[in-house]
Amino acid sequence: MIAPDDLVCLKAIALLGGLSSAVSVSSQSLAQELSISPQTASRRLISLENTHMISRTMRGDGQYVTVTQTGEENLRVEYAAYRRIFETHDRHYILEGELISGLGEGRYYVSVEGYASQFSDKLGITPYPGTFNVKLSPSAIETRRKLDAMEWIEIEGFTDHDRTFGGARALKCSINGYTCAILIPGRTHYPEDIVELISAEHLRDVLGTEDGSAVIIEVTR
Amino acid sequence: MIAPDDLVCLKAIALLGGLSSAVSVSSQSLAQELSISPQTASRRLISLENTHMISRTMRGDGQYVTVTQTGEENLRVEYAAYRRIFETHDRHYILEGELISGLGEGRYYVSVEGYASQFSDKLGITPYPGTFNVKLSPSAIETRRKLDAMEWIEIEGFTDHDRTFGGARALKCSINGYTCAILIPGRTHYPEDIVELISAEHLRDVLGTEDGSAVIIEVTR
Repeated sequence: MIAPDDLVCLKAIALLGGLSSAVSVSSQSLAQELSISPQTASRRLISLENTHMISRTMRGDGQYVTVTQTGEENLRVEYAAYRRIFETHDRHYILEGELISGLGEGRYYVSVEGYASQFSDKLGITPYPGTFNVKLSPSAIETRRKLDAMEWIEIEGFTDHDRTFGGARALKCSINGYTCAILIPGRTHYPEDIVELISAEHLRDVLGTEDGSAVIIEVTR
Repeated sequence: MIAPDDLVCLKAIALLGGLSSAVSVSSQSLAQELSISPQTASRRLISLENTHMISRTMRGDGQYVTVTQTGEENLRVEYAAYRRIFETHDRHYILEGELISGLGEGRYYVSVEGYASQFSDKLGITPYPGTFNVKLSPSAIETRRKLDAMEWIEIEGFTDHDRTFGGARALKCSINGYTCAILIPGRTHYPEDIVELISAEHLRDVLGTEDGSAVIIEVTR
């Protein structure tokens, strides 16, 4: 395996075009590029040459460096790792937590026609009248934050009999294979360790869970 | 900028799934994965936490680690660099060298109908009767080797009047905008610093070159 410090240097040469031609590289220019000392840059170049990652030649106007086949293979291994990290098409977020009781207002809101029709149209969920509330474990909170970057479905606010109902955003997910959706009201500052879900099922019943039961929420992008 | 050693560690956590959920990571498991000591692994985790690249939590069954948004951004910067390195669609290889005289046999072979018709059909080049020979500069030899991985066009061998003509492979390229092709006979062990080219033009004339003139060959994938 290539040393991490050498890899940074090899990558810099590749970015200069060293994969497809000999590029002019001096210890000074490399040092500046990588914010290291020229001495360190020089050592890195020697190390890369000794491990057959680059070949170096001197011309009248200075040193020229080409990334060798071995060097390119090492860079490709890195590239493949990053592709595995970022190009997993079905990226699966896993949020762990435990079931808690809501305040009971979920039951009311979910039943309001202006919301229910949107849940049905936009999420394909004719919701059970009630919400399923999960307190996330501390290790899941960081993952929960990342969900903000996903495409949430907007549930619009509306007025009914002079009463104003605020908007919300929803994200489909599943618990033990049951389709559900995380619902976040737009109006309030929502606690980041609580997730409120709706589902066509009475999840508490079908999952056989009670307060304190472990729950795993899966979100697939 | 993230320290190279920390990056290796962060990448390993991302490969375990740390981007999308909290993953079980111990100093021991990480040490084994990265072939470093558990003490070093532990230091790396602390460093990554201090720089807000990961968040760590303890559960009953051990330590769980999630890559934070900041950590993910750092990995994305790396990924983007590797994409720039490898996904440049028109990858341009540049080979520098100087014009030399051939042995004169190029003129004969290029004129043989069995070859000439293939150059015309497969390369779109009705060749000037003669080859253009370039001695590569030392810094170009490494680049020349990489061309072997490209898709060469096969020029088939044949028999004419009881004489056997060997096969060859050809790769289209250009010199100063003039289309030409590198030709490598299949039969012999060819010197790696010599490139023999054919072109519809009398390159020596149109380029105004003579023996010793600098020549730049461009190959685009």
